[in-house]
Amino acid sequence: MEKLVGYKGDALKILEGANAQVGDVIKIVRDGESYEGILMPRYELADDKHIVIKLKNGYNIGVRITPGTKVKRIRTGARPSFKLPPAPKGDPALPRVAILSTGGTIASRIDYRTGAVHPAITARDLYAVIPEVSERANVEVEVLFSLYSENIHAPHWTKLARSIARRIRSGVDGIVICHGTDTMAYTAAALSFAVQDPPVPIILVGSQRSSDRPSSDAAMNLINAVYAAGRAPFAEVAVAMHETTSDKATVIHRGTKVRKCHTSRRDAFKSINVPPIARVEADEITMLMRSYRKRDRRRKLVLRPKFEERVALIKFHPGLNPRIVDWYVNEGYYGIILEGTGLGHVGSSLYKHLRDAIENDLIVGMTSQCIWGRVNMNVYDTGRDLQAIGVIPLGDMLPETALVKAMWVFGQTKDPEEAKELILKNIAGEISPKTYF
Amino acid sequence: MEKLVGYKGDALKILEGANAQVGDVIKIVRDGESYEGILMPRYELADDKHIVIKLKNGYNIGVRITPGTKVKRIRTGARPSFKLPPAPKGDPALPRVAILSTGGTIASRIDYRTGAVHPAITARDLYAVIPEVSERANVEVEVLFSLYSENIHAPHWTKLARSIARRIRSGVDGIVICHGTDTMAYTAAALSFAVQDPPVPIILVGSQRSSDRPSSDAAMNLINAVYAAGRAPFAEVAVAMHETTSDKATVIHRGTKVRKCHTSRRDAFKSINVPPIARVEADEITMLMRSYRKRDRRRKLVLRPKFEERVALIKFHPGLNPRIVDWYVNEGYYGIILEGTGLGHVGSSLYKHLRDAIENDLIVGMTSQCIWGRVNMNVYDTGRDLQAIGVIPLGDMLPETALVKAMWVFGQTKDPEEAKELILKNIAGEISPKTYF
Repeated sequence: MEKLVGYKGDALKILEGANAQVGDVIKIVRDGESYEGILMPRYELADDKHIVIKLKNGYNIGVRITPGTKVKRIRTGARPSFKLPPAPKGDPALPRVAILSTGGTIASRIDYRTGAVHPAITARDLYAVIPEVSERANVEVEVLFSLYSENIHAPHWTKLARSIARRIRSGVDGIVICHGTDTMAYTAAALSFAVQDPPVPIILVGSQRSSDRPSSDAAMNLINAVYAAGRAPFAEVAVAMHETTSDKATVIHRGTKVRKCHTSRRDAFKSINVPPIARVEADEITMLMRSYRKRDRRRKLVLRPKFEERVALIKFHPGLNPRIVDWYVNEGYYGIILEGTGLGHVGSSLYKHLRDAIENDLIVGMTSQCIWGRVNMNVYDTGRDLQAIGVIPLGDMLPETALVKAMWVFGQTKDPEEAKELILKNIAGEISPKTYF
Repeated sequence: MEKLVGYKGDALKILEGANAQVGDVIKIVRDGESYEGILMPRYELADDKHIVIKLKNGYNIGVRITPGTKVKRIRTGARPSFKLPPAPKGDPALPRVAILSTGGTIASRIDYRTGAVHPAITARDLYAVIPEVSERANVEVEVLFSLYSENIHAPHWTKLARSIARRIRSGVDGIVICHGTDTMAYTAAALSFAVQDPPVPIILVGSQRSSDRPSSDAAMNLINAVYAAGRAPFAEVAVAMHETTSDKATVIHRGTKVRKCHTSRRDAFKSINVPPIARVEADEITMLMRSYRKRDRRRKLVLRPKFEERVALIKFHPGLNPRIVDWYVNEGYYGIILEGTGLGHVGSSLYKHLRDAIENDLIVGMTSQCIWGRVNMNVYDTGRDLQAIGVIPLGDMLPETALVKAMWVFGQTKDPEEAKELILKNIAGEISPKTYF
């Protein structure tokens, strides 16, 4: 894979047939014409119909494969023409930041200036492609996984939390985690509960640029995340992404209060019900939230890395089959987070089933599919009925955060009373004491 | 219920014991003191510990019930002291608007000026409490249900659609539907598919003011909805709610592109991925959307009021149990709408189960839990894999709209090929041809 990085389908087949690898000098013969040059790597999103070579004149060209196209390896080559710089020596005046990579667009596209793809990045790669990073921190890079984020769940959260704790105990001034954006907010919430009271910032960063067009999305956010991890005055689990669609500033969101709210925009991530923690722009950090956990190197973090995945998220909607609740009970689930309507409601057809679940010692918590605002189950009969059944209002906790928190809670205890207490305890700013907006 | 409207618990019990009803003159004896006056109705959200009477001097007082409190009916009374105006004669110059009531805060609190509660409103009630309505249209009111909206689902959608069709065929210039806000967007989507090509506007309106404090929320939106229903140039199913938190303007959202995005704010409803259709402010209608279905009294509406509720909405999240898909297949479901992450992804642990569902002739459609933006399943391997399995990308359709549409589709046909074609057909603006934001 690494040998022919980025190639797939027809292009991969023809290159494998020629026993070529990236860096080799090859000759492509197509429709009577021939092209000679160094085989270049491709983006992970490239099509499977082109082979890219660097010609002697220095230009890269893509040669489209047609039936009958032939490829011949001329010689085992010089490696691709870009050179990694020597490993940086480290400036003792700079903070120490650990970068943990889990995969996602940011980890694979990070080399936006060279056009090369390294699914697994190293500190040297990073310095090579984003030299600005080396001016902001002495970084140490660890590749934990190389996963699309939709495949990251509890076991990965546990491993990440342990790695974070290890790095922090080794004395770093901050942590940056490269992560796919799809489930980055879920992981941020998970780490907020698994790594409590961190002495330094733990900042997840991703990239929304998924097409092949050039973009500094990944670079700016990574540079700003590294800068903030090393120097910002807060010490929380957070997410760093574009503030707007322009490449002006990165905002840093609290890990329990952030949500991906657009499929493709660079400013897809939004703080919900609270302001962002901070803005980073041109090496200047502006705090936007008044109350945050302060950086304090002497504080000992509390590592609680276990999760229990038998927690359900049920989004209520007209026509929802209430027997879905019974199914989760029969599957041995410990908790159910409801994404109710409005202030925290579900249709009365669910009552009986929720009552059964609660009698079976499941914890049932209520959040709102509105996303913004907070549940208030004292206003209407429906809310009062649900509370009488034993459904717990979860304030302004996001449904996704409540789900992850419940998974974490049942990783700590299986006792329903303890679990109930823990789910209502404000651990990492997941419940706002007041409504901001 | 009507006799003692708004009373419940202890207060209801003691009044029933005295055989009293609203409007009667009663005497309350409590702790040696006695209070005499006309029994007043209460808000639906009032507590169960007070009885409200209007004293001779015209003031209303609430008497708290204590143990030993006694109530005696003095005489069958004058009805409550506010008088309904004579039924309006109807100004032939005004448009004819039908108001269909389904319940919700707007229908029960509509009498914000008198303090009286009428769960079932009539045209006369309406004129009495919001006389501005009579200056804007000749209204005819029909009470269809009196339900919290979380209990409104497919059978109610069908009944509503039939009532709308009947009223439109009888020649009204527009329809206004009073509806609880919790599921108003679901109903709006349902009616968009059930009543196609309407010749006149069909506007749902609700109220976010749920506490007892006075508010003109219901009044402004209802006045503006009636005005727009009678005169606006568009003919679509729409939702009319506050544009901002101030009582300045009502915006009208397309029924398939609107979502309740805040639990309590008056501007909770937002148009997603498109601008609102129009703004109504001080009897002026400003069109905000360039492309909309025009009002045309000669056009014949197409009534397709049937729905099939065996359609599931599965929101993907880390740790989701993939066997939930099998459960729906076993329950005889016809379709599954996935609320995937990002551009339309789910974890690879679901692939096998989705493949089985599709082999069992279920339709599986993909939407995004990001809410804003549109799915694009050609960018990453995950999206391509899911398409290869047979998952259908649903563009920028909201998950809730896609769910309701699928329910409607399977109300029309059980044939998977026909259903697939229908779900991808843009029927009521549910798929935007381009991305606005």
